[in-house]
Amino acid sequence: MIESYFKAFEAYRAQHPFDGEPTALYTPVNYIMELGGKRLRPILALMGYELFNPNYAAALPLAYAIEIFHNFSLVHDDIMDAAPLRRGQATVHTKWNPNTAILSGDVMLIYAYDYLLELDAPNRIAEIVRVFNRVAREVCEGQQMDMDFETRQDVSIPEYLRMIELKTSVLIAGALEMAGLAAGASETDVRHLYEFGRNVGIAFQLQDDILDTFGDPEAVGKQIGGDIVQNKKTYLILKALEIGSVSDRQKLESWMNTPTVDAAAKIAQVKSLLQQLDIQNLAQQRKQEFQDLAFEHLQALSVPPQNRAALEALAHGLLDRAF
Amino acid sequence: MIESYFKAFEAYRAQHPFDGEPTALYTPVNYIMELGGKRLRPILALMGYELFNPNYAAALPLAYAIEIFHNFSLVHDDIMDAAPLRRGQATVHTKWNPNTAILSGDVMLIYAYDYLLELDAPNRIAEIVRVFNRVAREVCEGQQMDMDFETRQDVSIPEYLRMIELKTSVLIAGALEMAGLAAGASETDVRHLYEFGRNVGIAFQLQDDILDTFGDPEAVGKQIGGDIVQNKKTYLILKALEIGSVSDRQKLESWMNTPTVDAAAKIAQVKSLLQQLDIQNLAQQRKQEFQDLAFEHLQALSVPPQNRAALEALAHGLLDRAF
Repeated sequence: MIESYFKAFEAYRAQHPFDGEPTALYTPVNYIMELGGKRLRPILALMGYELFNPNYAAALPLAYAIEIFHNFSLVHDDIMDAAPLRRGQATVHTKWNPNTAILSGDVMLIYAYDYLLELDAPNRIAEIVRVFNRVAREVCEGQQMDMDFETRQDVSIPEYLRMIELKTSVLIAGALEMAGLAAGASETDVRHLYEFGRNVGIAFQLQDDILDTFGDPEAVGKQIGGDIVQNKKTYLILKALEIGSVSDRQKLESWMNTPTVDAAAKIAQVKSLLQQLDIQNLAQQRKQEFQDLAFEHLQALSVPPQNRAALEALAHGLLDRAF
Repeated sequence: MIESYFKAFEAYRAQHPFDGEPTALYTPVNYIMELGGKRLRPILALMGYELFNPNYAAALPLAYAIEIFHNFSLVHDDIMDAAPLRRGQATVHTKWNPNTAILSGDVMLIYAYDYLLELDAPNRIAEIVRVFNRVAREVCEGQQMDMDFETRQDVSIPEYLRMIELKTSVLIAGALEMAGLAAGASETDVRHLYEFGRNVGIAFQLQDDILDTFGDPEAVGKQIGGDIVQNKKTYLILKALEIGSVSDRQKLESWMNTPTVDAAAKIAQVKSLLQQLDIQNLAQQRKQEFQDLAFEHLQALSVPPQNRAALEALAHGLLDRAF
């Protein structure tokens, strides 16, 4: 079922390559756009539109704008995070250089607005661009918070949840909100769509935190413990710092403030402490709360139940890591 | 006369600071926006609007959007050019770091669209955003061409003129075009405004090339010969390569391909060769052609002559380097 939205999106993308000049500017754009990925955000936009209007192809320019924006943010974030790989391939700044990654990213952000304006929704286009602006700004704010947290020792759980909301959730939520607006949904339905996406996004990120430490490497498809090695202040770590004894906190802080020498030993020790504090279950419960909230908003939409089936299946797939 | 537009713009800017959070993201934005500058592009937007509508204050959001975009491009260009100073002060990536400069620049680009949407021109807002997109994209393309030229040995004069048109002129032209659209000008007048700005911009950049080599350091307010030391392929150099003898070309190419050891000697030698070939006059003539073309388009506007006085004075001031 999801496959048909994916194919429609990929066909549209293939028909709209970046073929401008100079090629040094646009070749990296095509490279990152063709690296693949689940196309989660564009598929959400198409499904969100289809709730209210069966002709979801009309939302393809919106879906493309959102995916271009998402990839712009990946190109720039990868420079900031000095990440060598993205989807198993060289990042743009590694394959070319940071200057190219900056400028190709910039032009992607501009193109996102171009495709947004291709959307056939004359009465709501200004409103949609405003939502896009708000979301885009918030994604930058989330990335800045994430960078700020690296050097802060006093990050609270509400701050962490706000950071992942901005960095990850608002674009998922915004994709659905803009799709609803474009399809002519009511204000109430647009709000439910947004809240559905926002809570799905937070649940998804919490799940990501859990899997990075407690996941099955084969099922997750990557090495376990990366967050621990990088001293990332995930929900798991922040929760342990909150509920652990003074001695637990001292141990955790000492590990986090010491450069990693023996990664396997560090992962084992931190994981063992988290297990003693039952952190996996606590995080799982928190994730479940956001997930339940998400589905409540989905149920509250004033559309026939069968219209919600695709979004429901997608969200379940995403949060069960089958997608 | 120009002072009143400048003051109106600065007052609007002061009323619209970047006061969001996290402050690590927005402090650099306020820093660059407060560094000053002539505010040429916003003033052009206000004057362009006033040609057709006396209430130029209505164009302040457009003027601000354009200046934010301009400063965004400076922040990112300064990273790419590894420039330590901007307007005599530390560049954003020097005062903070490249990551901050990337992300603060990104959020500026997004805010530019926000202010663009503040413009009260409901019937033309989509068209104005499209012009903004085209211009923004072209500025990126111009920057990429400029970077490509650094390592190319076969840059032609038409390519150079196209590069400075994209990198410098189209934003000046676009500011006037968008102002005309916002003020309800006819298609023909909007076209004349654009062409006026485009040709002024090219003339201005050619003048910049001339002054960097042949200017009076006191009048220009900076050291002379920077372009020569940096081996920049300016109009002067490209013209000399075109009309010089085989021996002249060999000398020039040898200087440009050798790292600068004695800057003063290099400047003196290159300058002397350019003087032998009468390059200053040839460049001056080329500049004059663009300038004449610019004023022809200004005269062609279907507005009372007195309405054009402000733009005429500004352009003369700019091209006589008195502004």
